[in-house]
Amino acid sequence: MNSPAIAAALRQALSLAEQAIGLTDPNPRVGCVILAPDGRELGAGHTQPAGQAHAEVMALRDAAARGHDVRGATAVVTLEPCSHHGRTPPCCDALIAGGIARVVAAVEDPNPQVAGQGLARLKAAGIQVELADAAAAEAASELNIGFFSRMRRGRPFVRLKSAISLDGRTALPDGRSQWITGEAARADGHAWRKRAGAVLTGIGTVLADDPRMDVRLVPTARQPLRIVLDPQGRMPPGARILQPPGEARVIGPGRHDLAALMAELGGQGINELHVEAGPTLSGAFLDAGLVDELLVYQAPMLIGAGRPLADLADLTGLDAARRWRFIEAAQIGQDLRLRLRPK
Amino acid sequence: MNSPAIAAALRQALSLAEQAIGLTDPNPRVGCVILAPDGRELGAGHTQPAGQAHAEVMALRDAAARGHDVRGATAVVTLEPCSHHGRTPPCCDALIAGGIARVVAAVEDPNPQVAGQGLARLKAAGIQVELADAAAAEAASELNIGFFSRMRRGRPFVRLKSAISLDGRTALPDGRSQWITGEAARADGHAWRKRAGAVLTGIGTVLADDPRMDVRLVPTARQPLRIVLDPQGRMPPGARILQPPGEARVIGPGRHDLAALMAELGGQGINELHVEAGPTLSGAFLDAGLVDELLVYQAPMLIGAGRPLADLADLTGLDAARRWRFIEAAQIGQDLRLRLRPK
Repeated sequence: MNSPAIAAALRQALSLAEQAIGLTDPNPRVGCVILAPDGRELGAGHTQPAGQAHAEVMALRDAAARGHDVRGATAVVTLEPCSHHGRTPPCCDALIAGGIARVVAAVEDPNPQVAGQGLARLKAAGIQVELADAAAAEAASELNIGFFSRMRRGRPFVRLKSAISLDGRTALPDGRSQWITGEAARADGHAWRKRAGAVLTGIGTVLADDPRMDVRLVPTARQPLRIVLDPQGRMPPGARILQPPGEARVIGPGRHDLAALMAELGGQGINELHVEAGPTLSGAFLDAGLVDELLVYQAPMLIGAGRPLADLADLTGLDAARRWRFIEAAQIGQDLRLRLRPK
Repeated sequence: MNSPAIAAALRQALSLAEQAIGLTDPNPRVGCVILAPDGRELGAGHTQPAGQAHAEVMALRDAAARGHDVRGATAVVTLEPCSHHGRTPPCCDALIAGGIARVVAAVEDPNPQVAGQGLARLKAAGIQVELADAAAAEAASELNIGFFSRMRRGRPFVRLKSAISLDGRTALPDGRSQWITGEAARADGHAWRKRAGAVLTGIGTVLADDPRMDVRLVPTARQPLRIVLDPQGRMPPGARILQPPGEARVIGPGRHDLAALMAELGGQGINELHVEAGPTLSGAFLDAGLVDELLVYQAPMLIGAGRPLADLADLTGLDAARRWRFIEAAQIGQDLRLRLRPK
């Protein structure tokens, strides 16, 4: 277990890291708090947009700006400090140069360019190094689940979003779906889009609904890339998804290998991929086993005949169904937000 | 707000009343705690099966058995004491004869034969009478929601139970449904059956699954009446639902007016009706606006093509859909238990 002061600093650092959502991609979201030996906070900060300062440097700068001497202090950080020269110099060097005596990291960096080397480098410089307890490690990993996915599996963490009625319908038989869920759920959905490096949909959804698929119901510093899969080349040039704000990419025509596409997007720095699509494309992602999280807003209504969440391959029996587990059931306005991960 | 001692006694009385679930139908579930002026408990009890002692009499007997004098004491009871001669003498008379000085009731009895007359009779005998606060009244009404429904509307409180996948399927296209939900959810479903005076299903379900529809996964002192709607007279004489334990009733052949049936069941003392049926009958109840609560177990799986929760009349638009509100989303084993009431 972490000491109370360290645990509190970890919570604060995680909270700072959350402020970096929608800011740092493809870099991870990291927070850092520097504590004096007596537990006072000397400085704090979070990662800036890629190419700018990391959390440790922001916290050191904050301490300096507040006139604090950090020699002998403890740096509490949500991710192992980096040891390699990327677009910025290594954070390890900044901590060593600052005279930090102790570093508590929530979790090791999965980046093969770091992967324990940051901690080793700090130790070699005489800094006392500790990893936080499992709960802090879990929270820190969760916050950067997409970054971890990309580092470990070479592909994004794929979150499939849907809005359904209690009886599992996403729309009336004719496609009308405005609105099944309420305003609060729709805004919440934008907050999840904001987390993503890219939002992916299919040409069917574009042709049916002409959605913008951008982040507008919550504030954001940048827009995720919008990707449309268009295997038959039917993209209307005037589609709203092609307009600013943000970039859009149309993939097609041709046959799409979703697994290969995931690897490609991983290589392009997409940490979290937000899939918001019709039943055909949703079913393709699900049948391919590429969905890491289901994000389902469920409205307290019954529709009866209507469109399904996903067109799935026929099951030979219930035992053959892929099993999930609920990781969340939360009320959002009048609706429920259900989150599931593979069992 | 109730004083802490009264609030604690109300919680205890409600907990006792819950023990009367599956015991007292068609009578309400009532608990009673008798407190000495210094707050000590003198006696406690809950309603017994119909024709036997009510909660107040059980609590007075308990106090007597423990050698306590209840003169000057406070009786805390979850429902207004009865003032009429039913199958047992009025509880008011027993409280008056015992020398009780004060009665705190959670809620007035909706029974037109009581409806404030119990409290009036106590007052007339010089007893100090109080109603508990709104929270206690709400909890006490909820526990007897079926009894209140029958007294106020002349019909049972109708709870429609379903077990569905995340995408709203109750079975594969060929009808296989064993098992979508897990053991914990199935046992929980039996606890809800136990609350009901009757469990109702349709002939389609009987022919397809040959279910027993009894209470066996949780202990119970009595079995609910099992009712099968069989409009075409297709009931197989050997069906398991017709076997003990418990009684079964087959309604049909002929056209069934569900609203009239509800009134009939209300007249027969059914407080809560548990409907566990296929999509046709579930849809008929829903389209008729006769469902007071949806009890839906939702499993963390996607089925794709399959059977729906209910066959509903076509909607002219999403605005035309009946609106519900979630009153609960609880994890039961691997599944969710969702409860909804009309908005």
